Amino acid sequence: MKICIIGSTGHYNYVLEGLKGDHAARIAGVTPGSKGERVDSLYSIIKKDYPGARLYDDYCRMLDELNPDIAVVCCFFGDHAKVASEVLKRGIHLFVEKPVATTMEDLHMLKEMYDKSGVLLAAMLGLRYAPWFLAAWKTVKEGKIGQVRLMNAQKSYKLGNRGEHYKKRETYGGTIPWVGSHAIDWIYWFSGKKFVSVYSSHTNHFNSEHGDLEVTALCHFAMEDEVFASVSIDYMRPAAAREHGDDRIRVVGTKGIVEVRSSEAYLFSEDTGENISLSLPGGQSIFGDFLKEVRKEGKCLVSAEDSFYVTEACIKARMSADENRIVYF
Amino acid sequence: MKICIIGSTGHYNYVLEGLKGDHAARIAGVTPGSKGERVDSLYSIIKKDYPGARLYDDYCRMLDELNPDIAVVCCFFGDHAKVASEVLKRGIHLFVEKPVATTMEDLHMLKEMYDKSGVLLAAMLGLRYAPWFLAAWKTVKEGKIGQVRLMNAQKSYKLGNRGEHYKKRETYGGTIPWVGSHAIDWIYWFSGKKFVSVYSSHTNHFNSEHGDLEVTALCHFAMEDEVFASVSIDYMRPAAAREHGDDRIRVVGTKGIVEVRSSEAYLFSEDTGENISLSLPGGQSIFGDFLKEVRKEGKCLVSAEDSFYVTEACIKARMSADENRIVYF
Repeated sequence: MKICIIGSTGHYNYVLEGLKGDHAARIAGVTPGSKGERVDSLYSIIKKDYPGARLYDDYCRMLDELNPDIAVVCCFFGDHAKVASEVLKRGIHLFVEKPVATTMEDLHMLKEMYDKSGVLLAAMLGLRYAPWFLAAWKTVKEGKIGQVRLMNAQKSYKLGNRGEHYKKRETYGGTIPWVGSHAIDWIYWFSGKKFVSVYSSHTNHFNSEHGDLEVTALCHFAMEDEVFASVSIDYMRPAAAREHGDDRIRVVGTKGIVEVRSSEAYLFSEDTGENISLSLPGGQSIFGDFLKEVRKEGKCLVSAEDSFYVTEACIKARMSADENRIVYF
Repeated sequence: MKICIIGSTGHYNYVLEGLKGDHAARIAGVTPGSKGERVDSLYSIIKKDYPGARLYDDYCRMLDELNPDIAVVCCFFGDHAKVASEVLKRGIHLFVEKPVATTMEDLHMLKEMYDKSGVLLAAMLGLRYAPWFLAAWKTVKEGKIGQVRLMNAQKSYKLGNRGEHYKKRETYGGTIPWVGSHAIDWIYWFSGKKFVSVYSSHTNHFNSEHGDLEVTALCHFAMEDEVFASVSIDYMRPAAAREHGDDRIRVVGTKGIVEVRSSEAYLFSEDTGENISLSLPGGQSIFGDFLKEVRKEGKCLVSAEDSFYVTEACIKARMSADENRIVYF
């Protein structure tokens, strides 16, 4: 199983972790995916475990010369769709950073390419595999809280000093698609409901000279069957915090409430009578599962349909904030 | 100091608590404020401490005969404004359940009456006095989190079996004004920002045969200076829970984050470096402070202007949910 990596801007770590101990798969090549993107440090890491891996400066050439089984795309966010389409065009399985596109035009184009390709595709919605989210999700799917009615999701990150590609909408795509995509994915994944409409706000005020980058954002989703969900996003987490992010979700159902916070999952239901900690599963990884699916030995929790649908929701939420209007699905 | 109570549907407990140990004030009369409202059990409680208190069946007659210094209005929610206007008309200080009105027409009418009255007015936004909210608010006002940028507020109640006046919009006024008013007050009180617009959703699905009563609701407020706030409201708290409500707020500032949950207040800032518990103040009560203000010995944390403004925000948020549109202030 031959793997190529295009770009080192996103969560390529999912790939390195998913490959651990897998002696039947190897990284064959690395290349930038965006103009001005550096992949030197990723390449030097990869060389240690895969001495035969080659460094390219043109991803099309790499794909043509190495003809990998899987291509990983994680370059500047505004280029995901363009690069990914070159992968799909060549009939290569695709593991791609989320959002898979940053405009509706790019998303439509990519979907069409995918439909014709016959390959597998998964976006890096890797937080589904965080043990606390997986435990909470399984509990909801087992019916422990009855029917999902209301959700409150939160992403809170440290800002720090970010590279230039974060500072321009064109390369960055916006904070709702980049940071919010995880939370927008959770509300879809936990409820299993389709989106009906979204109303959002975002601002780059107080962004410490990060150009276009929005540091606070809020989304209000209406979903099927009058299920509602808030998504709160910020880059305001104090630098002194031990953990980079403060991810949370609260899922309110007809029979109980599930919550994730501080890397723990809790269930409060009529049956439990109080807030109880859920035991956390281990051992699953998103790229590991994607590899299994390529080998026809399993299934990744993130489907191509999920990847496209969550990206659509991200773009529509950003559109709502940009244009200050309710956007319908 | 003579006090009369009209209705026993709302938080008259604030009055009983605020009067404890105050030998210069007494309750002189009790009467229903709404058609079909029973005040027997309140009257029998009051008789123990105030044997001279009289029971009336007509609030106008009680006001005219007893001519109290303060009238307390807490009848069916749809009648607050009408009853309160009779109090103001007579130049009597008014302590009134929130929302002070359930329609914009009633609110305008009441404001006009107040402007002409020359008396004091405070709505029962008593959760400002809960030690955890007071501690959190003081910390924010001391500048410990810098400038407020994003807020997430939550009200979650048990539903139980509620009286008939909860089941009709006309008498109840809606869940956003009744339950949500506290949270809508917090976001205004913590930020000190005016509201710019609101977008809301609510539904009576899964309300266990409670007629019009909405059991889940979500509001998205845009405030001055691009401050955003979510308000999540539900009646889905499991009956098995020890506490009736699960009140929370998260206030994200440019220098730190303050949170209230589980009757505790926390500060996380660059200075603290981790989440620290705030010490909780004690000894203040909303009606005690209102009495002090009437006696010119102090000031209530809730002003007449706050009471009207928060009520306006509640009604506009409900209007947004009813009509599925963004409502501007």
